[in-house]
Amino acid sequence: MEHGAAPAALPYYVAFSQLLGLTVVAMTGAWLGLYRGGIAWESSLQFNVHPLCMVIGLIFLQGDALLVYRVFRKEAKRTTKILHGLLHVVAFIIALVGLVAVFDFHKKKGYADLYSLHSWCGILVFVLYFVQWLMGLSFFLFPGASFSMRSRYRPQHIFFGAAIFLLSVGTALLGLKEALLFKLGTKYSTFEPEGVLANVLGLLLVSFGVAVLYILAQADWKRPSQAEEQALSMDFKTLTEGDSPSPQ
Amino acid sequence: MEHGAAPAALPYYVAFSQLLGLTVVAMTGAWLGLYRGGIAWESSLQFNVHPLCMVIGLIFLQGDALLVYRVFRKEAKRTTKILHGLLHVVAFIIALVGLVAVFDFHKKKGYADLYSLHSWCGILVFVLYFVQWLMGLSFFLFPGASFSMRSRYRPQHIFFGAAIFLLSVGTALLGLKEALLFKLGTKYSTFEPEGVLANVLGLLLVSFGVAVLYILAQADWKRPSQAEEQALSMDFKTLTEGDSPSPQ
Repeated sequence: MEHGAAPAALPYYVAFSQLLGLTVVAMTGAWLGLYRGGIAWESSLQFNVHPLCMVIGLIFLQGDALLVYRVFRKEAKRTTKILHGLLHVVAFIIALVGLVAVFDFHKKKGYADLYSLHSWCGILVFVLYFVQWLMGLSFFLFPGASFSMRSRYRPQHIFFGAAIFLLSVGTALLGLKEALLFKLGTKYSTFEPEGVLANVLGLLLVSFGVAVLYILAQADWKRPSQAEEQALSMDFKTLTEGDSPSPQ
Repeated sequence: MEHGAAPAALPYYVAFSQLLGLTVVAMTGAWLGLYRGGIAWESSLQFNVHPLCMVIGLIFLQGDALLVYRVFRKEAKRTTKILHGLLHVVAFIIALVGLVAVFDFHKKKGYADLYSLHSWCGILVFVLYFVQWLMGLSFFLFPGASFSMRSRYRPQHIFFGAAIFLLSVGTALLGLKEALLFKLGTKYSTFEPEGVLANVLGLLLVSFGVAVLYILAQADWKRPSQAEEQALSMDFKTLTEGDSPSPQ
């Protein structure tokens, strides 16, 4: 394979993942528009800001941030890193709006906060996402960390990045289920159109998660290391072979 | 590292994962015993067979089957393969009992089947698990497949094995949430003891999933290839470097 050239199948898989991701966002919008009265910051519709922001931020954009190193293969490593970090910032800000929306909605309605498994998983995702971002910034963007420190931390960053993304997908499924059961109750079992649409949305969320992970897991789709950094740092592939990295 | 010797930290991580897995099983039993009247095949208690069997089969045993190649590092590869396959058979049979229990319970009560996201994900897990097992059997245990076929299929088998396990964890969370909301309804928001216990169980399910995946993801914890098979087949490590395997 030409150094830096994308593997032949990769663009198709990436395109498919984007199609899935955009379908998930569109279907969340359709669900909220068709069955939940749409979106607004004031009134009861404020709740609906929550699922939409979470799906855009913590599902679609977080997933795409993970794919940055597979898509941008020839650009300077530093540019790709900054794009990766920025996408996560945008994802985090959108998710924060979604978080404020639901807490504000609960407050106005006098509902209790943080009692459900969905909310516990959601807060866990938020805390881990923030810590992971700070760790990534300190190790990979600030010049302070040595190359051997970066090399040792890199596999951990990748594993926990994938784990936080998957936990986000799981948390979305729990939230979707909660929203369905609170509103439909036993009508859920009569195959109400809203229930069927939401189930399909749930399966699409799972599919987006699997598609992103599949692209990340293919060893020969990893970003090739380039001359500029080969001279400076260790390649991830070398790392995963278990050799201990030596600073150069 | 001595060839075949376990990396120093691995046993502690495996022990921790087992502690988590057993706690999940015990806590599921405690939840059903304390708040759901216990377990029986006849009567309404038949439903309770479902979560217990699923947690034992599709969470604990499925997870442990994935760890077999990390735990048994010096045994013959064929023995390890057979243990891996057998653990999955036992997991599948226990899960099948859990599946029959819920369908039989629904039938006796006149409840609808397969309307919820939990049930859709559950059936998906069952079908994928069965297909994955059959594929594994055909490629790795029957002598028919060539070494190059095995080498090409191995990374796919590993990826989809991990994906099916994670989907099982996600499906369990959805089922737990469903069982809570059906019974507690709005009382869930008053921090009922059952709700809190089930939330903790949910977080422990997530932790078990993360622990198993973490052990699988460590590159230098992979089972070393042994002389017997090095002469015959390709090592996974070589594969993941993206070299095309050549039949020998």
